[in-house]
Amino acid sequence: MNDLYDKHRDTLEQALEAINKRSYWSAFPEHPKAYGEDAPADGEAAFEARLGKPFSLDQPHDGYLAVEETSPYGIELDIDYPKSSIEQLIDGAQDASVQWGKTSPEARAGVLIEVLDRLAAQSFEMGHAVMATTGQSFLMAFQAGGPHALDRALEAIAYTYAEQHRLPAPMTWEKPQGKREPLVIDKEWVIRPRGVAVTIGVSTFPTWNGYPGIFASLAAGNPVIVKPHPATILPFAIMVETARAVFQDAGFDPNLVTLLTDTPGAPVAKDLVMHPAVAIVDYTGGPSFGTWLEENVHHAAVYTEKAGVNSVILDSADDLADVFRNLSVSMTMYSGQMCTTPQNLYIPRGGVQVGGEVVPFDDVAVGFAAAIDGLLGDDERAVGLLGAIKTDEISARIDEAATSANVLLESRQIDHPAFPKATVRTPVVVKVDAADRDTYMREMFGPIIYVVATESTDESLQLAAQSAREKGAITWLVYTTDDAVTDSAIDAAVEGGVSVAFNLTGGLYVNQSAAFSDFHVTGHNPAGNASLTDPAFVAGRFKVIGVRKQ
Amino acid sequence: MNDLYDKHRDTLEQALEAINKRSYWSAFPEHPKAYGEDAPADGEAAFEARLGKPFSLDQPHDGYLAVEETSPYGIELDIDYPKSSIEQLIDGAQDASVQWGKTSPEARAGVLIEVLDRLAAQSFEMGHAVMATTGQSFLMAFQAGGPHALDRALEAIAYTYAEQHRLPAPMTWEKPQGKREPLVIDKEWVIRPRGVAVTIGVSTFPTWNGYPGIFASLAAGNPVIVKPHPATILPFAIMVETARAVFQDAGFDPNLVTLLTDTPGAPVAKDLVMHPAVAIVDYTGGPSFGTWLEENVHHAAVYTEKAGVNSVILDSADDLADVFRNLSVSMTMYSGQMCTTPQNLYIPRGGVQVGGEVVPFDDVAVGFAAAIDGLLGDDERAVGLLGAIKTDEISARIDEAATSANVLLESRQIDHPAFPKATVRTPVVVKVDAADRDTYMREMFGPIIYVVATESTDESLQLAAQSAREKGAITWLVYTTDDAVTDSAIDAAVEGGVSVAFNLTGGLYVNQSAAFSDFHVTGHNPAGNASLTDPAFVAGRFKVIGVRKQ
Repeated sequence: MNDLYDKHRDTLEQALEAINKRSYWSAFPEHPKAYGEDAPADGEAAFEARLGKPFSLDQPHDGYLAVEETSPYGIELDIDYPKSSIEQLIDGAQDASVQWGKTSPEARAGVLIEVLDRLAAQSFEMGHAVMATTGQSFLMAFQAGGPHALDRALEAIAYTYAEQHRLPAPMTWEKPQGKREPLVIDKEWVIRPRGVAVTIGVSTFPTWNGYPGIFASLAAGNPVIVKPHPATILPFAIMVETARAVFQDAGFDPNLVTLLTDTPGAPVAKDLVMHPAVAIVDYTGGPSFGTWLEENVHHAAVYTEKAGVNSVILDSADDLADVFRNLSVSMTMYSGQMCTTPQNLYIPRGGVQVGGEVVPFDDVAVGFAAAIDGLLGDDERAVGLLGAIKTDEISARIDEAATSANVLLESRQIDHPAFPKATVRTPVVVKVDAADRDTYMREMFGPIIYVVATESTDESLQLAAQSAREKGAITWLVYTTDDAVTDSAIDAAVEGGVSVAFNLTGGLYVNQSAAFSDFHVTGHNPAGNASLTDPAFVAGRFKVIGVRKQ
Repeated sequence: MNDLYDKHRDTLEQALEAINKRSYWSAFPEHPKAYGEDAPADGEAAFEARLGKPFSLDQPHDGYLAVEETSPYGIELDIDYPKSSIEQLIDGAQDASVQWGKTSPEARAGVLIEVLDRLAAQSFEMGHAVMATTGQSFLMAFQAGGPHALDRALEAIAYTYAEQHRLPAPMTWEKPQGKREPLVIDKEWVIRPRGVAVTIGVSTFPTWNGYPGIFASLAAGNPVIVKPHPATILPFAIMVETARAVFQDAGFDPNLVTLLTDTPGAPVAKDLVMHPAVAIVDYTGGPSFGTWLEENVHHAAVYTEKAGVNSVILDSADDLADVFRNLSVSMTMYSGQMCTTPQNLYIPRGGVQVGGEVVPFDDVAVGFAAAIDGLLGDDERAVGLLGAIKTDEISARIDEAATSANVLLESRQIDHPAFPKATVRTPVVVKVDAADRDTYMREMFGPIIYVVATESTDESLQLAAQSAREKGAITWLVYTTDDAVTDSAIDAAVEGGVSVAFNLTGGLYVNQSAAFSDFHVTGHNPAGNASLTDPAFVAGRFKVIGVRKQ
C-alpha cells in the first residue's frame, strides 16, 4: 500500500466493477474539451518541442540512434533516440524488478494508475505524436492514442490485480486423520513476476494495442522493454519517459520500463525475444513475424495480435441507405489501416431483400460504391476521415488491386490542405466473384475493398468463416432482418472465432471496440492467440509458488 | 440445468468455495472403509472379470487391438481394447460435441459430477486396475487412483465452471454522446468449446494426472479423446466406459469420450495431436515428448507435466531422526516413481547444525542411508511401501547408479510374497560431490537417490535452483531452523519456479499434493507449462465470442 494506491483506489475499484459488469464505463474522457482550454495549444507545443532533436531518456545507453521513423503527413520528425543494447536493458530490467516484484499488487496498481493519469494530462501531445507518426486524423489519434488506450491500460491493470487476489491469505491447513491427530500445515502462496517482458509495437495504433500487455506485465511485477515499430517510435518514447518519471518519484528504479529502438536494416526484435531472461512477449503487427514468434519462442509466454481478413455479410435490410452510411464510414476511416476494418463485403448474386423487395446485386454494389464516393467527394472532409497512408506497401497494394477488370470505384489521390507532402488515397472498390478466392481471401491491409458476389448468404457465411479460420479475422458485420440468418451467422462466427455485430446503421462502427466491455480479438483464429483483455491474457504473467511449513 | 445439476449442486458449490478458501476439503473419502463392507470383494471381482478378454466399448472401432500393457506385479492382463482410427474418433467427437457444446455449464457440471460419483463407487475396481498396471501398492493405487484423482477432477470442473461465469448475462450497453442521443447496443457473449481435446496419459498415475485436463475440457464443452500410455491402459478404459454410460443415460452422445490405444511399436500420439481438429492437448509423461509437443503443436493449446529433478536441502534441524523418518518414507514410496519424489539430498560438507551441535557430513549421510535400510529391512513391510518397478529402463537406471564408487546403500531385489513375478527393488543411495553435476543433475526417475556434498547451504540452494531451471522440478523440501535460510530458500524456490515445503517430520510427505489446496507444478520451469489446477489451466479451453446487435 502507498499514497498512490490511496489516491487511485476509487478508480481501481470502479475498473474492477466495470470488467465484471461490462456496461459502459470510461476513466479517461474522450472529449478533447474535457482537458481544459490550454490543453490543445500546450499539447501541440510539447509535441513541436520534440522535433528535430534527440529524445533524452536517462536509461542505460551509449549515445543516440538515428532512426528511420516516418510521418505519413510528411512532417519532419528527425528525432534520435537513446542507443541501448539488449544486455544493458535486460540487466537494468532485472535489477529494477527485484524491488518491484516484491511490492504489493495494491502499491503497483497505485503507481501504474498514476502513470495513466500523467499520460492523460499529455493527451494532446500524445494525439499529435500518434497523428504525426501513424497518419491518423487528429481526433482519432487523440482518442485512440490517448484516452481509449489509457482505458485499455486500466482494464489490463484491473484484470491483473484481480487475478493476483484469487488466492487466500496465509492459512493453516488441517486434515482430519480419523482417531489420530490431524495433519496440520501452514500454507501460503507467494506471487512473483514471471520475468522480463517485451512489447513489440505496431506502426498504426502503438499505444492502444501496446498498453494492455505493458501494463498487465507491470501490474504483475515484471519489468518491460518496449521495442517500438521502427517507423512509429515517438508515442512509446513519450510513454516510457512519463512512466520512468512516475517510478522515480514513487521510489522505484525507472529501468522498470525502457525503450529499445531499431531500424528496418538492423532489426533487434529476434535477438531480444530469444534472450533467455525474456519471459513474456506481447506483439502486435503483421502475421509473418507474429507466427514466427508463436512457433519459435518456447521459453516465454507469447501473446499475439496479427490481424486478418474481416467480413461484412449483407443478407437483407430495412433500408440500404442506412446500411451504406454506416459501412462507408467504417470501411474508409483511417484508410482501412485498422485491424478491425472490414475488407470483404459479401452480397448474394441474386440480390438483397430490402423491405420486401429484392434489390439486384449490381444495384447494391453500385450503390455501395456511390456511397463511398459521395462520402469522400469533398476533399477537406475526406482527408479528415482518411488520414494518410503509412507505408509505400499500402500504396502499392491499392495500385495492384486497381488493375482488376471490375473496379467499381477508382482510388483517388488527394492533396492535403495542411500537409502538402501527405499521401492521401481514397479506397479502391473491386468487384470479384466468390470463386476468385486468391484475390480477396488474403489480407490486403489498407484502403482496398472487395465486393464479393456469392451464391447465397449461406455461401457468404461459409466464405467468411473459411477466411477467418485460414487467415484470421477480428470483426464481422452482418446485415439481416431474418432471425434464422442471425442464428447461422452467430454459429459461423463462433466456428470462425470472430466477434460479430448486426445491423449497425447508427453512430457505432464495427471497427470500434470499447474497453471494459468488448474483447478485442478472441484468440481463436490466426488473427491472434490472445484477447484484450481476458483473464487468460494476464493469468500467465506471474508465478504462484506454494510454501508449506510444518 | 437438468436433474443431475440439481442432484450435484451442493457438491459443486462446496467445490467452488474450496478452490477459493483452499483449506482442507475432499468430496471423495480416501478411507477404504467409507465404501461399505462389500466394496473390497466386489471391486476385486470386477477387476478380475476384466482380465483375459477384450474390453468392450461401444465407440466407433474395427475389431480389437492386442496391446502391450504391462503389470509390474507380473499379473497376466491379456486385455485387448477396441481398435479405432484417429478419423473415426475425431468424427465421433465432433458430432457429439454439437449438442454438448451448447449445453449450459450447469448441466455439463451436473453430468460430469455424476461421472465422478459412479467412478467413486468403482474405487476398489479402479484401485486394483491402477495397482496392477502401475506397480503401486494397493492403498496408494486406491487413494491416488480413486478418490484423490476424483477430487482433482472435481477441482478442475469447479475452476472451469467458475471461469465460464465471469461474463455477465446479455445486456444493453449505453454510451452517452453529450447532447446527442446515446449509442445503444445489445451485447451478449457466447461461450463455446474450443474443439477436440486429447489427453495423453502417463504410465504411473494415469487417473490422478489425467482427470484434471479431461474434466476441465469436458466441463468447457469439448469432447475428449483419451490416448493412454501403451503400458497402462486399463484405468482409462474403465473411466471411459463409465463416462460413456453416464452420457448415454443423460441423453448425450457417448462419443464425447473415447479411447485410442496404441503399442510402443506403432505409436499414434503424434498423428493424433497434429490432426487439425485437435484444439487442446493435455500431456503427462517424459520430458522428451512433452517438449516436442510444446515446440511443435502450434494449432492447439498444449498443457504439459514432464517431471524433473526434485531436491531436499538439509541445513539444520532439531532432531535428525525425525528428519530421516519422514525423508526415508517420501524418498522410497512407490520406488521413487512419483514426479514429486525427491531425488537429490543436498548436505553441506561441513555438516549439519542439530540442536546447537554440528553433525559431520559423513555421519548425516550414513544415518540417512541407515534410516532407509531400516525402514525397508522387513521384506513384507518393504513391498507395501515400494510397490513394484514399472519398466526395465528403471531397473537399468538403478544398476547404472550402483556402479558409482560411493554407494552408501546398495539396491536389493525383494521377492514379493503375493506376486512372485513382481520386480521389487530397494533404492540405491549414492554419495556424490557437488562438482559432479553430470551425475545428479539429470532426471533419474525411479529409486535412485543422490546425497550431494556441497560447500554450504547457499550452494545447495543454488544447485537446486539450477537443476529446477534447467531440468525442471516440482517439489523442494528444506530442513532448517534458521529464518534467514528459510527466506533465501523461498527466494530460490520462487526463482526456480518450484513449490517448497519446510521441516516435514510428521505424517505429511513432500510428494503429496492435496486437491483444492496445493497446486501441482507451477508451470514456470521445464517440469511443465501448466499447473493443476489454476485459472490459466482452464481459461483457454473455451472461446468467448462477442455479439453486438443494434
